[in-house]
Amino acid sequence: MNEIRDEERQLPFDPAEAAADGQIVFIGKVASPWTDRSACPKNMRAARELAQPARIELDPHYREGLAGLQSFDTLIVLTWLDRSRRDLIVQKPRHAETARGVFALRSPVRPNPIGLHVVRMTAFDLQAGTIDLEAIDVLDGTPVIDIKPYYRSTDLPHDVMEPAR
Amino acid sequence: MNEIRDEERQLPFDPAEAAADGQIVFIGKVASPWTDRSACPKNMRAARELAQPARIELDPHYREGLAGLQSFDTLIVLTWLDRSRRDLIVQKPRHAETARGVFALRSPVRPNPIGLHVVRMTAFDLQAGTIDLEAIDVLDGTPVIDIKPYYRSTDLPHDVMEPAR
Repeated sequence: MNEIRDEERQLPFDPAEAAADGQIVFIGKVASPWTDRSACPKNMRAARELAQPARIELDPHYREGLAGLQSFDTLIVLTWLDRSRRDLIVQKPRHAETARGVFALRSPVRPNPIGLHVVRMTAFDLQAGTIDLEAIDVLDGTPVIDIKPYYRSTDLPHDVMEPAR
Repeated sequence: MNEIRDEERQLPFDPAEAAADGQIVFIGKVASPWTDRSACPKNMRAARELAQPARIELDPHYREGLAGLQSFDTLIVLTWLDRSRRDLIVQKPRHAETARGVFALRSPVRPNPIGLHVVRMTAFDLQAGTIDLEAIDVLDGTPVIDIKPYYRSTDLPHDVMEPAR
């Protein structure tokens, strides 16, 4: 956990220990088949290929927030990656050739450990507070902090330049 | 600010006052032309149409996190919508016909007031800690909490069902 690879750079403080600028409430959690880091898909592409369903379970107070979700099938889920350290500003992923800044990486290790997942919803139950998903790339039990409907008009970029991954 | 419209429903507590489950650090802020709520575009489509450039200004400690960003031109920016209330679980937007749950809305009013913006980067400066954007849909001074590179393989859904907006 505290290992730092060559070329990696640490912040002079740990954001997890810093004075909070904002406070997050967990609204629920993900129930996924992934109980073990090594088996958990590393990104949504890998998760979709494995096609193992998962479920979001909302805390009772937040269930009413699902009303109207029948108009959508694609959601953006934000999670709190609570098992990731927060203090590495430059990182060298295991299979990368060069180190990169955290804002050019999708690593779970980031100052605010927020995961972003574009997911397909297959069903939801307002009373039970559950959303069934085709797949997701997080460990079982990961806290959920927001759910947003996906809109092509705002979330779909035009052309995208990106390196091979 | 404390007005509640017909059909809107309030949580039995205010997430802004609840015990924190997670702590956010601000990594910088947005400098945008929008100093006034009524002029600020309501979503990224409207912002792109107005085509007013904006800039992200990172706090000095986080600047190194931009290394490697030259491989990308599309980013996902997460902001902290610090001027929005957090306690409405069902909302009726001014021009909507029916009330909807917050998780079926892109309203800034949400339990965790996180804004999600798919943006086009036109330039960045690692030393200055700045990222120039084609456009963004937030008020000047809005705190930034994360920046992620956009990947088609993970962030582009296949077909998307959504209502007209």
